[in-house]
Amino acid sequence: MQVSFIKVSADSHFPIQNIPYGVFCRKVDGKVSIGTRIGNYVLDLSILSEMGYFNDLEFNRTKPFENKTLNNFMSLGKDCWHEARIAIQDLLSEDNPKLRDNLEVREKVLLEIENVSLRMPVDIGDYTDFYSSRQHATNVGIMFRGKENALMPNWLHLPVAYHGRASSVIMSDTDIHRPCGQVKANDNTQPEFRASGLLDFELEVGFFIGTGNALGNPIRIEEAENHIFGLVLVNDWSARDIQKWEYVPLGPFLAKNFATSISPWIVTLEALQPFAMSGVFQEPQPLSYLNSGRNKTYDIKLELAIQSARMDSPQVICKSNFSHLYWSMEQQLAHHTVNGCNMRPGDLLASGTISGDSDDSRGSMLELTWRGDNPIKLSSGEERKFLADFDTVIINGYCQGDGYRVGFGELKNKILPAKL
Amino acid sequence: MQVSFIKVSADSHFPIQNIPYGVFCRKVDGKVSIGTRIGNYVLDLSILSEMGYFNDLEFNRTKPFENKTLNNFMSLGKDCWHEARIAIQDLLSEDNPKLRDNLEVREKVLLEIENVSLRMPVDIGDYTDFYSSRQHATNVGIMFRGKENALMPNWLHLPVAYHGRASSVIMSDTDIHRPCGQVKANDNTQPEFRASGLLDFELEVGFFIGTGNALGNPIRIEEAENHIFGLVLVNDWSARDIQKWEYVPLGPFLAKNFATSISPWIVTLEALQPFAMSGVFQEPQPLSYLNSGRNKTYDIKLELAIQSARMDSPQVICKSNFSHLYWSMEQQLAHHTVNGCNMRPGDLLASGTISGDSDDSRGSMLELTWRGDNPIKLSSGEERKFLADFDTVIINGYCQGDGYRVGFGELKNKILPAKL
Repeated sequence: MQVSFIKVSADSHFPIQNIPYGVFCRKVDGKVSIGTRIGNYVLDLSILSEMGYFNDLEFNRTKPFENKTLNNFMSLGKDCWHEARIAIQDLLSEDNPKLRDNLEVREKVLLEIENVSLRMPVDIGDYTDFYSSRQHATNVGIMFRGKENALMPNWLHLPVAYHGRASSVIMSDTDIHRPCGQVKANDNTQPEFRASGLLDFELEVGFFIGTGNALGNPIRIEEAENHIFGLVLVNDWSARDIQKWEYVPLGPFLAKNFATSISPWIVTLEALQPFAMSGVFQEPQPLSYLNSGRNKTYDIKLELAIQSARMDSPQVICKSNFSHLYWSMEQQLAHHTVNGCNMRPGDLLASGTISGDSDDSRGSMLELTWRGDNPIKLSSGEERKFLADFDTVIINGYCQGDGYRVGFGELKNKILPAKL
Repeated sequence: MQVSFIKVSADSHFPIQNIPYGVFCRKVDGKVSIGTRIGNYVLDLSILSEMGYFNDLEFNRTKPFENKTLNNFMSLGKDCWHEARIAIQDLLSEDNPKLRDNLEVREKVLLEIENVSLRMPVDIGDYTDFYSSRQHATNVGIMFRGKENALMPNWLHLPVAYHGRASSVIMSDTDIHRPCGQVKANDNTQPEFRASGLLDFELEVGFFIGTGNALGNPIRIEEAENHIFGLVLVNDWSARDIQKWEYVPLGPFLAKNFATSISPWIVTLEALQPFAMSGVFQEPQPLSYLNSGRNKTYDIKLELAIQSARMDSPQVICKSNFSHLYWSMEQQLAHHTVNGCNMRPGDLLASGTISGDSDDSRGSMLELTWRGDNPIKLSSGEERKFLADFDTVIINGYCQGDGYRVGFGELKNKILPAKL
């Protein structure tokens, strides 16, 4: 097993097998760089590039690591991503003295994670949110439309999705004000304007497009995987009372677009390959443009915890897994572009809430408490039907290897009171 | 009345009272510039800026006309937009010899419209499409859901909208391939993959955000107008058969995101002020965050024509007016941000199909032919239920002043066969 000269504990999400990408700002001088993470350190790829460490490599022709976002690097394609990964792993390897024994350079390019703040790694052009968990769609369907209309007739035939809002995609550690909006109580005849009373999270995973496609030229399912750069954890914040009133007939809008948060490190699809597995069996068989003869997914363990202002530590309230999803990323991408819709490097496509079969694998408060009927008991003695002000929501995700983990770190946001 | 030294006919859309903004490319050398249009000429604002014509003006601190998109200029705000407009009108005025009598500079900065190609004027961050025509929502509602559920309970209380796709917003004169997708015929039990058989246009008008707002800080309705830079004609292309099968429960997706086209010249809100008027009376009275005490709209005459491959000239099949809309731009913007959603300079917000009361004011084939029941007869002897391959759709829009027009020019796109 490959090992780095940087000490990485077995439960760290960031061993040499990971090599995720992010953008960070040095607290000391404000310099913004592209970096990767190894254990509790950030490796400054921008400075390494400036110092010539990637000279003569194919991917480095346009010096993509010297930008302030990853879009350029993401546009280069699979071969370049692989080449860069190998070069970075080689530099970090315990067998390679080049960086290991050069303390002067190490001082410049290896920063303790406490000494940086993480930034939005990508300029996101468009953000799409799917609805690809059968259990989630069924649960929500029952609650919003009753048992008869739970799963819509189209659901098993295509990966349902809607366009989200790119401007309000935010980072982990950004606080979110409770949104205000128009809601209508069942027993009122008129709507009212108020702070949302039913604020919720949605546990999701998203993927970033690397290479795009020209308008009018679909990405075939056989090619879809080659267009995927990497994955992040996603929290698709939702105001259920606003959603219920606004969503017919054109779908969710203000109930969702006040915030969508993502984890800061993009874990590449290549790093996830050891954790690939077959997904859910699909019956009926999808139409051929959605059928690759496989349903490839990844064994990514997901956990969601909340911590109220009165609690000392987070309490896990949901354990799910990426592999619970019915529709694969390949299918999502093939469907999204089959009409010719164009993807650009840095576009974000999220999974939709990932719920499993068990009660504690449901990825939203709406489902976990069954619309508030079964409140969650917190260790502080408090109860929650939906989120309260000053609650912090923390999503974690990782793949378990033999003696190591490839993970996403954590996605954490606190709810602040509404600004009325 | 102000007059330019450039001759402009009374029915031109581009007199000195207009001064729209666009981005163009010189055919002779490929140079890309920001420009305005006057009669049949384009005035190169980038070169004027480089030559120092806007020196000492407040708006010109960052030399926004020397960029390749209008985003920077749009971000500057109302006072700067006004200052630039006055400066440009002054330069073009028949009383001002500065440009009029400098033939050497005129040669460099005034180009005949035939000698340029128009480009996407704005880097569009997010695109939102509203659904603000009561007649359109009612017509579509009757056809998709029956008369009882035509206008949803929320419709008269808030401007319903959905997020569109920014990547596939294209320009006038760009051809569009008929999209393919998953559809299900009423009498089939299974869906099939095919080229859309029910391709449609939607006659709309959109507005571009100038100054944005920070996430979490709504734009109040009293301030909304100050954030609007200008307007364009919009065609929200729609595949009705794809839409019908996919749209529950999250709204339209592949039925719309294969193409949305816009007219190339952005007509500023300031240029439209002489044509401001009161809009539709709103009953019930909107909640206070949507109530400015006025419903300000603009008298913009809209026409849509089609021309088949067998026709020599376009045939007008729809005459509508921007003022038919129920919800105003101010209300749309106040609603969109009331939950804290952030706008960025260059975001596009479109009206939704603009239909009026009369049969010939319906802004889509779906409504004009009542889902194909009443085909349109073309001058060639052909009939149309929906659009056929090689049909060209042309939208025109203008305001009629006393002896002059302020217009958008034309938005024209041809349908090409599906790539199967």
